[in-house]
Amino acid sequence: MKAVDIISNKKHNKKHTKEELEFWINGIVNGTIPDYQITPWLMAVCFNGLDFEETAILTDLMAKSGKMLDLSFLGNNVMDKHSTGGVGDKISLILIPLMASLGGKMAKLSGRALGHTGGTIDKLEAIPNFNTGLSIDEFLSQVKEIGCAIASQTSDFTYADKKLYELRDVTATVDCIPLITSSIVSKKIASGANIIVLDVKYGDGAFIKTKEDAEKLSHMMVNVGKQLNRSIIAVISSMEEPLGYNIGNSLEVIESIEVLKGNGEQNLVELTMEIGSILLTKAKLAQDKEEAIEMMSNAINSGKALDKFRELIKCQGGNPQCIEDYSMFPISKYIVPIKAEKEGFVNKIKTYEIAVGCKNIGGGREKKTDSIDLSAGIVLKKKVGDYVNIGDTLFEIYSNDENKIKENIELFNSVFTIEEMPPKPIPLIYKVIE
Amino acid sequence: MKAVDIISNKKHNKKHTKEELEFWINGIVNGTIPDYQITPWLMAVCFNGLDFEETAILTDLMAKSGKMLDLSFLGNNVMDKHSTGGVGDKISLILIPLMASLGGKMAKLSGRALGHTGGTIDKLEAIPNFNTGLSIDEFLSQVKEIGCAIASQTSDFTYADKKLYELRDVTATVDCIPLITSSIVSKKIASGANIIVLDVKYGDGAFIKTKEDAEKLSHMMVNVGKQLNRSIIAVISSMEEPLGYNIGNSLEVIESIEVLKGNGEQNLVELTMEIGSILLTKAKLAQDKEEAIEMMSNAINSGKALDKFRELIKCQGGNPQCIEDYSMFPISKYIVPIKAEKEGFVNKIKTYEIAVGCKNIGGGREKKTDSIDLSAGIVLKKKVGDYVNIGDTLFEIYSNDENKIKENIELFNSVFTIEEMPPKPIPLIYKVIE
Repeated sequence: MKAVDIISNKKHNKKHTKEELEFWINGIVNGTIPDYQITPWLMAVCFNGLDFEETAILTDLMAKSGKMLDLSFLGNNVMDKHSTGGVGDKISLILIPLMASLGGKMAKLSGRALGHTGGTIDKLEAIPNFNTGLSIDEFLSQVKEIGCAIASQTSDFTYADKKLYELRDVTATVDCIPLITSSIVSKKIASGANIIVLDVKYGDGAFIKTKEDAEKLSHMMVNVGKQLNRSIIAVISSMEEPLGYNIGNSLEVIESIEVLKGNGEQNLVELTMEIGSILLTKAKLAQDKEEAIEMMSNAINSGKALDKFRELIKCQGGNPQCIEDYSMFPISKYIVPIKAEKEGFVNKIKTYEIAVGCKNIGGGREKKTDSIDLSAGIVLKKKVGDYVNIGDTLFEIYSNDENKIKENIELFNSVFTIEEMPPKPIPLIYKVIE
Repeated sequence: MKAVDIISNKKHNKKHTKEELEFWINGIVNGTIPDYQITPWLMAVCFNGLDFEETAILTDLMAKSGKMLDLSFLGNNVMDKHSTGGVGDKISLILIPLMASLGGKMAKLSGRALGHTGGTIDKLEAIPNFNTGLSIDEFLSQVKEIGCAIASQTSDFTYADKKLYELRDVTATVDCIPLITSSIVSKKIASGANIIVLDVKYGDGAFIKTKEDAEKLSHMMVNVGKQLNRSIIAVISSMEEPLGYNIGNSLEVIESIEVLKGNGEQNLVELTMEIGSILLTKAKLAQDKEEAIEMMSNAINSGKALDKFRELIKCQGGNPQCIEDYSMFPISKYIVPIKAEKEGFVNKIKTYEIAVGCKNIGGGREKKTDSIDLSAGIVLKKKVGDYVNIGDTLFEIYSNDENKIKENIELFNSVFTIEEMPPKPIPLIYKVIE
């Protein structure tokens, strides 16, 4: 078998055999296939696709291309949750202690911010001294002990995905359903949970722009999960405006704590409850959605969920006092309000652009090696559908770099669209696919 | 401008601007664009194409990406001829002395055999001591002196094409009309001739399988030539059977000498006359095709063309006595006849497979670094349309390696198709496009 023949077959829209895909992934892992042959194959896949069977085989091979966690010793309620990438999406931060406080096991391996989307690991590092660099042993024993742990996914997992993802990022081959499927699902399978909810974002602030593509991707991921004996449920949700009020690392941890205190923004709570109730019912910790929601509300109202977050922070070296004292988080020197220049209804918040603005003022990174200002971000004061008067604050910009704020002020001034008439409401949750 | 954006634009079927193509080719030449970004762009071009304007700009940039010959000091009748690659195609060997004997200037830079097709430089090296490594100064002064010279194209010409061609070869992106156009035409433009005939082969033994694709490619190359102020004429000819009788390096030089002695096989002579008459009339050395053919016939019958070949061999260090004494050429130890096992008409000669067989027995190379057996090849005794009886020799295999003959005997036994009825004749020349 020769690499050029594999490329040629996909170029000519032939279905790959299992042997071809094995040859291909082995070659990527062993380094015998050079990058300049991997990338035209990726491009040919963008044009001609991979069918369900090819995608399932590829995903399986990618999952097995590095370390795989066996979490069966934790029982049958090991939960995982992954978002395809959004703006202001801090659902994992909330769900990890919330699920653990209700008997679920959350063994969460996460990534860092890249491009316009945030990363759970960076967010948690806004908590002073929080250690995300747990060894696998430390990680597993913590989950066993307190029901949850969160650590940075090390480079020895899904080697083939790492290689492919790095190449996709620089060759315009990211937005391809079978490639996204194999990347996400292989990582989730290697991470070892048996109940997996994927939050598939669509819209302005997401990688996937349309509901239709989000639905295609969801079906593919759910079915590949079935094929590989994992229960995967996809929740398709809108990213046409940021989730909650806060964007940025410190700011999102603070907002997560507010949700656990019972003060959550409506959309953020709705999506947390939706995903949480799927996890609880699939784990048979709740009989149905109604019971699950009641359990979660009780855990929040009783302080049980917040206690679990306190325990998690303490276990991973952080100071849980930050839950009561937000001044312990990195705080920006500059807070600049953006005010409405006309009155009317907020019709649109350009979510992708607001995320790019947040990144530009220090809150994100363009390249993996960029440093990050954990305090930088945005606090929205108005959301889509709200009525505003001239002079009302639409949002506040947080940053330690006055110049960066100035450089991006034009961008920030353009992100709100205010019209005379209210917008047609967009439901937050479009569909659940399982 | 970023490389990933150029890839993304072509992936999304956007037309490249001149600035984008300049950035791209400069990046390839300077090495600032890595191979793994070049190859997915090549694949995207295979899917979405380049339009005429993009192809013309790309061709111009590629021509200028290395040394360019200015041959205007030789006058306005500097001729060049290029074949897109065939089997048994020794037309250049015949035309170079023939045209020079009639007042044309043939300054020919050629390549070597690769894959299933031959290369003029290898063929000439079958002539003992023939030096194809002329410096540019030696090359030019020889053309000025005797009207023709032939040298190996050095690596300082069309750098971008060399880079792209190497990558296309290993990424299944060879068969793409705008990429073929820019590759061929850029080389011809850099080589400096003002009258250029391109012999565009189609069929079993060619890279391009259909007349339709050959026609598309021809129009593209002719029009790009016009745009860049060069007179390019495309002759579309069939490669459904080998050209002439002989395939292989020594064997093709011998057959070329036979043509110059007036003993040429019919198809070989027909195509030589067609291309030669275009060159002569475009150079205004003949008024029309009729006169051109008469001139060429006279040059052959009088021995003038053969004398020019003699002069060429002598000038480049070879011994012209080989023209009379074929035993001076490398000769194979083994000559194995393949005989007809049934009677009837030859309906088909699998040209690609016969060429692969010739390569396998030592006559060609798979990789640039492979060595070559100059004596190895095939001599056809029958051609398509001929009637054969059981036991008639169809062709003879020449090689110095008995084992390789044995290994390929099954392949060779399968290349002739003999049927009761004669085949529908295929005209050798399909169209001339200018």
